[in-house]
Amino acid sequence: MAFFGNDYLAGCHPAIMERLAATNLEQTAGYGLDPYSESAREKIRAAVHDERADVHFLVGGTQTNAAVIASILRPWQGVIAAETGHVATHETGAIEAGGHKVLTLRSTDGKLTARQVHEYARYYQANPAQEHLVQPGMVYISHPSELGTAYAKAELQAISQACREHGLALFVDGARLGYALHAQVSDITLPDLAGLCDVFYIGGTKCGALFGEAVVICNDAFKPHFRALMKQRGALLAKGRLLGLQFDTLFTGGLYTRICHGALAHARRIRQAFEAKGVAFHGESNTNQQFPILERRQADYFVREFGFADWEELDGRHVVRYCTSWATTAQQVDELLRAIERL
Amino acid sequence: MAFFGNDYLAGCHPAIMERLAATNLEQTAGYGLDPYSESAREKIRAAVHDERADVHFLVGGTQTNAAVIASILRPWQGVIAAETGHVATHETGAIEAGGHKVLTLRSTDGKLTARQVHEYARYYQANPAQEHLVQPGMVYISHPSELGTAYAKAELQAISQACREHGLALFVDGARLGYALHAQVSDITLPDLAGLCDVFYIGGTKCGALFGEAVVICNDAFKPHFRALMKQRGALLAKGRLLGLQFDTLFTGGLYTRICHGALAHARRIRQAFEAKGVAFHGESNTNQQFPILERRQADYFVREFGFADWEELDGRHVVRYCTSWATTAQQVDELLRAIERL
Amino acid sequence: MAFFGNDYLAGCHPAIMERLAATNLEQTAGYGLDPYSESAREKIRAAVHDERADVHFLVGGTQTNAAVIASILRPWQGVIAAETGHVATHETGAIEAGGHKVLTLRSTDGKLTARQVHEYARYYQANPAQEHLVQPGMVYISHPSELGTAYAKAELQAISQACREHGLALFVDGARLGYALHAQVSDITLPDLAGLCDVFYIGGTKCGALFGEAVVICNDAFKPHFRALMKQRGALLAKGRLLGLQFDTLFTGGLYTRICHGALAHARRIRQAFEAKGVAFHGESNTNQQFPILERRQADYFVREFGFADWEELDGRHVVRYCTSWATTAQQVDELLRAIERL
Amino acid sequence: MAFFGNDYLAGCHPAIMERLAATNLEQTAGYGLDPYSESAREKIRAAVHDERADVHFLVGGTQTNAAVIASILRPWQGVIAAETGHVATHETGAIEAGGHKVLTLRSTDGKLTARQVHEYARYYQANPAQEHLVQPGMVYISHPSELGTAYAKAELQAISQACREHGLALFVDGARLGYALHAQVSDITLPDLAGLCDVFYIGGTKCGALFGEAVVICNDAFKPHFRALMKQRGALLAKGRLLGLQFDTLFTGGLYTRICHGALAHARRIRQAFEAKGVAFHGESNTNQQFPILERRQADYFVREFGFADWEELDGRHVVRYCTSWATTAQQVDELLRAIERL
Repeated sequence: MAFFGNDYLAGCHPAIMERLAATNLEQTAGYGLDPYSESAREKIRAAVHDERADVHFLVGGTQTNAAVIASILRPWQGVIAAETGHVATHETGAIEAGGHKVLTLRSTDGKLTARQVHEYARYYQANPAQEHLVQPGMVYISHPSELGTAYAKAELQAISQACREHGLALFVDGARLGYALHAQVSDITLPDLAGLCDVFYIGGTKCGALFGEAVVICNDAFKPHFRALMKQRGALLAKGRLLGLQFDTLFTGGLYTRICHGALAHARRIRQAFEAKGVAFHGESNTNQQFPILERRQADYFVREFGFADWEELDGRHVVRYCTSWATTAQQVDELLRAIERL
Repeated sequence: MAFFGNDYLAGCHPAIMERLAATNLEQTAGYGLDPYSESAREKIRAAVHDERADVHFLVGGTQTNAAVIASILRPWQGVIAAETGHVATHETGAIEAGGHKVLTLRSTDGKLTARQVHEYARYYQANPAQEHLVQPGMVYISHPSELGTAYAKAELQAISQACREHGLALFVDGARLGYALHAQVSDITLPDLAGLCDVFYIGGTKCGALFGEAVVICNDAFKPHFRALMKQRGALLAKGRLLGLQFDTLFTGGLYTRICHGALAHARRIRQAFEAKGVAFHGESNTNQQFPILERRQADYFVREFGFADWEELDGRHVVRYCTSWATTAQQVDELLRAIERL
Repeated sequence: MAFFGNDYLAGCHPAIMERLAATNLEQTAGYGLDPYSESAREKIRAAVHDERADVHFLVGGTQTNAAVIASILRPWQGVIAAETGHVATHETGAIEAGGHKVLTLRSTDGKLTARQVHEYARYYQANPAQEHLVQPGMVYISHPSELGTAYAKAELQAISQACREHGLALFVDGARLGYALHAQVSDITLPDLAGLCDVFYIGGTKCGALFGEAVVICNDAFKPHFRALMKQRGALLAKGRLLGLQFDTLFTGGLYTRICHGALAHARRIRQAFEAKGVAFHGESNTNQQFPILERRQADYFVREFGFADWEELDGRHVVRYCTSWATTAQQVDELLRAIERL
Repeated sequence: MAFFGNDYLAGCHPAIMERLAATNLEQTAGYGLDPYSESAREKIRAAVHDERADVHFLVGGTQTNAAVIASILRPWQGVIAAETGHVATHETGAIEAGGHKVLTLRSTDGKLTARQVHEYARYYQANPAQEHLVQPGMVYISHPSELGTAYAKAELQAISQACREHGLALFVDGARLGYALHAQVSDITLPDLAGLCDVFYIGGTKCGALFGEAVVICNDAFKPHFRALMKQRGALLAKGRLLGLQFDTLFTGGLYTRICHGALAHARRIRQAFEAKGVAFHGESNTNQQFPILERRQADYFVREFGFADWEELDGRHVVRYCTSWATTAQQVDELLRAIERL
């Protein structure tokens, strides 16, 4: 039986496991100062078309979000995020534990708009008692969002412009970045991200790695001492080469692209099967997370048999979530499709 | 050429790599709620003779120290540590970043004494302006210490008693625990630790695992919500089974014990070779870290050729550090011994 | 010309200034260990009918909120508050700077309900991935609220019961407490507060003192080391007697009650004058803050001439705020009433 | 009977009390935006010969130290201080509560030297594993120090130069600044401080005010958003004019200078009386804090009868502390001198 509840159910792409095994007994320097990490950094710099970018490898997403945000904000500043943003909802207050408020803005689709950024920045700037308010210091967006939606290039450009106009750093949480970049409708590329953001990360944990997130710092102002902050927050892996090797493999021969395409194709097949049965979807996700709206009985069935996530109640029906990933197989999808067919 | 500069140069014991590969494509629940983690927890509970202990797996040492200390202390409290303690020296202020002062006490051998704990606690308790001082809330010791020295059971018992008398939690940093527990002179066992400490951890990163530290919480007062704190501090690995699998393997068939014994035997052979050449040692280490005192020229040679760590100058000569580990081979040691012979 | 924009425009009640002057050159112990502070503590304990209460004097409201919340919460916990609560809006992220998330709940009248507390607590308790969420650790309410509304005793009892049922501490921000306790409709007394809350404070700054807030800790669990936390957060005044003297004066001969009654009577007179001119009010405030809804031209006039606060736009009209205080005089109100008459 | 145990025993200089009383019922804007605060800021800018300096008024010393340090340091940085520095010893870990390590250097006289700053900065800069260390970001010195000693201008210049060479901010804690500036041997002026430091403060609490510290920010880089940080840390007084009025009075007609001179003259008379009786002193204090070394019986007598502070044991004898202040009178000193005469 296969589960579709999330995209971190399995280990890593076999090509990565092979290299980990092959290099296992080699001796290298620690803390990311090894040749594999350096090679991975080079490949990522090439992929994002920014030779001056700083690239750092961290272990997980919450850690990465907390470290990046702490490295940028000053004590009196907070981070603007959609109310659905991961930093606002599912990180046990990691950002607040670092001393910063998450300034949440309403969102029904998981995304922020440039207009919201403008409005909030102006609200703050116009306030005569500004020192009683948390200053917005940066904008956090997830691409794709926690609801599977992805930004169009024009949307991201507008947000980027709003941020620059108001002196806000722009940080893109790319825990599932590959699944947005390679979505059929996507018109955003890695070089676009490097040009439009100050910092973003390329998620490995959910996109083929055992674990690992590659932070790309494009803005010179935020480069110094990031390694010190990583160490302080417990995010500097002793055997850093484990991270370097994984990203080196993902960015060799188009592996990252290939496995993301696969996951997206699986997700579309499943969506089409549900739609063929008249099932509606919650939100306009084009990525590897999809949110069909089911009857209670149907929802229970897919949660039980295929590990769908029980998302939320909606007007008497139930939104569930399924994810595909690099690890999803055609056989697993076939099995799920047969079950959908029987609805 | 082999390096002896630290004990995190290589990957993991082959038995671990095999199991990681063998289980790679399995689907399991995330965040440590998988069967491998549960199995590892059971084995560790059995090994420490405390069926009620809470066992959690974290990725690295700094992360573990910061999380454990933050979970125990109240805002007005600090942690007593030797001035040589890792939390005081090489974690970029991770404890302070969590809001707590490290209350350092003098130490020449890397260890604290029960007497020092008594004296500091009494100094605080007797102070009429107590609220102007940081209250000592816990004691942090490293076993073995950062200088390779290990506590005798009687020493640890005395510290434990001092802590209990003064209401201080006792936390043992066991990043290299295996190398202390299995040292020839050691009379401390895992059940002793469980009985004498409130929290300790069994280091994996330096003792055979790719990465990972197993926190054992023995005091009921510190058990609730530790997982929430882990998540908040970015220390709850999504694919937690990677940690569970590693510790499950280490605690199966005596692997942890076996590989630590090996490293210690290698360290002794090297020490004896240096001593045979009249080289003195800095400190009384019986563990896998050793600190020979060399002439500048000799020090340079071993730093360059065998990756010894350049530790510190001492009265015109140079203290260097070599480490052995589970990954050290007899061949590597033989090569080093030949070089020592040529001194 | 008199201003009605807030309740901290003037110094202190003359009786307090007289005592400050009369005792100015006396020598006393510092940090609140003086006889005046002790006397004030005794009077407050008597007034709240809790001889075992701990009473501490702090300088201002933000400081007090931050200190109390930091003293109660554990790192993984947050504080539930109305989205209009002072800690959520106008303290520059002071609570987050202490590491804790403010968990805001919707409120149109500035108050929380017991039902909201129940619902949030149950939402947390029922969540299978609880460790990814901030645990609600306490409830913060303002009495009166930032919108001038006050809790009825039954409402407060219900909230208190909800808190106790779910293991949440209840903290009442009483920056303007006197203006709620002495409102005509109020059925809550100081002993009620002491019985229903874990911690509350009696605001001095806005109720007759030069500055100062008296924290009353009723729950034994939160008493130890609060002075240490105060010192750490810069809230332990060196010449603590200045605070003691002020509260001693306020709680002698019914001064606190008397001056609050006066302010409330002034506020009512003004409200009645507006209502006589057909002006509607925003919200159901019975306290010293009132929110008339005016035409733009009218709003501008009162902001300019009487210092009303420009609160917010509402459907094309303007909500402004006027406050009365212990310092408001009949003459000032008469002058304002003449202006209202001319509307 | 008069006490000499510290310099915050009494209220404020009568000229300040008079003005507080005279302006008590005036209405002014809050949070330091009133004319009295503006006037005080102007006078301080003139006194320090820096028209561009930002001047802020806070309530107390611990609050001020914590706010200034938090406003300057980045998360991975710490503050260098003498091991005797107030921030290192008697503020309940306020700096660490803000996330920063106090990097203490040895000191027997309460002062740091430029050489120590150079050495520490170079130690950090030369460290190949820099990211594992807390980066020194600023230097904190107290003038006068906690042991009553004061810096010579050449010493301060050398420290300032060392700081600038290594990119360290220089912050001078001036809780007792007046008593150093006006000491007979002093060659440092307020304009010197403004030229040599990045931030310093002029203490009011111990030098004639009821309470209050005037922070002077000379370095443009540290000016923005300091008011927001003050608000966040509970250090922005609602009735800020109380602070402004006090400093306006202290900096009118030379009051600050006059009262400091008086206190220093008293301290010298007492010292001379002790010396005439053969009593030695601990340290070379030329300021209002003095540390005679007494026999146990003598120490007990002065602690009991004149409130001397019991400082520390020293080779079988006892160091006690006496302080004079702006409030000390000739009569009080006469009485003490008679007691010393009877030794």
